[in-house]
Amino acid sequence: MPGILDDVPDSHRDLLQSPLTATLTTIDGRGRPHSTAVWYLIDDDGQLKGSITSERVKFKNLSRNPNCDLFIIDPANPYRTLEVRAEADLAPDPQKATVAKFAKLYNVDEAMLMAAGDDRYTVTYRPRRIVVNPRSED
Amino acid sequence: MPGILDDVPDSHRDLLQSPLTATLTTIDGRGRPHSTAVWYLIDDDGQLKGSITSERVKFKNLSRNPNCDLFIIDPANPYRTLEVRAEADLAPDPQKATVAKFAKLYNVDEAMLMAAGDDRYTVTYRPRRIVVNPRSED
Repeated sequence: MPGILDDVPDSHRDLLQSPLTATLTTIDGRGRPHSTAVWYLIDDDGQLKGSITSERVKFKNLSRNPNCDLFIIDPANPYRTLEVRAEADLAPDPQKATVAKFAKLYNVDEAMLMAAGDDRYTVTYRPRRIVVNPRSED
Repeated sequence: MPGILDDVPDSHRDLLQSPLTATLTTIDGRGRPHSTAVWYLIDDDGQLKGSITSERVKFKNLSRNPNCDLFIIDPANPYRTLEVRAEADLAPDPQKATVAKFAKLYNVDEAMLMAAGDDRYTVTYRPRRIVVNPRSED
């Protein structure tokens, strides 16, 4: 499978490679959108991933309906955005390997993330379409 | 109708009162989420509003399904967020009155916004639920 960066223009790769906070929107049982703030990273396999605990509403939503939207606004320039329309794959992370990677990338105490819940899953975002703004001229 | 600030704790009102960029998520014809960056303002009647043109995908989505989610991340502190789960009302804005308010609030040339499209609608977000993070202690 190609890495996610293969589908992102040079002009916007930094938004995926930086430890920013994205808006993740999932669909609830009534078909309505529900948004939360999430961290994300590009894993060693080139895939875009997240980490969530099973008691969160977004986990329940993604279990029922994998369609989601990860949206990043550059906090330094809100005209720069990147949208990843995706389907989410959920995989148990009993060793909390993904959690440890987030702690390192976002420079927080791993124990803080562990405290947020024990039943960890790794989310892999399978992009359906990626949209960036502003579009590059070339 | 009460103003939107009546439902927002003091700790997070600034996020609605500041000219920030929010993530607006609508639902497409297949029930999937679609997110874009939007401006917003609290109008004189106390309601939370936006302005869109009728050729945008989000306009078509909201015309079909008014359920949407407006999500704000504080660019200065991404742990601070405000979510407005809402239904959107769409009203024609032939005089572009709302556009003019946005130009003033966001300090941009009104002509720039006009250039983005002529067929303007005002979106009023009718909140179903508002969620803030972090929750205040009181």
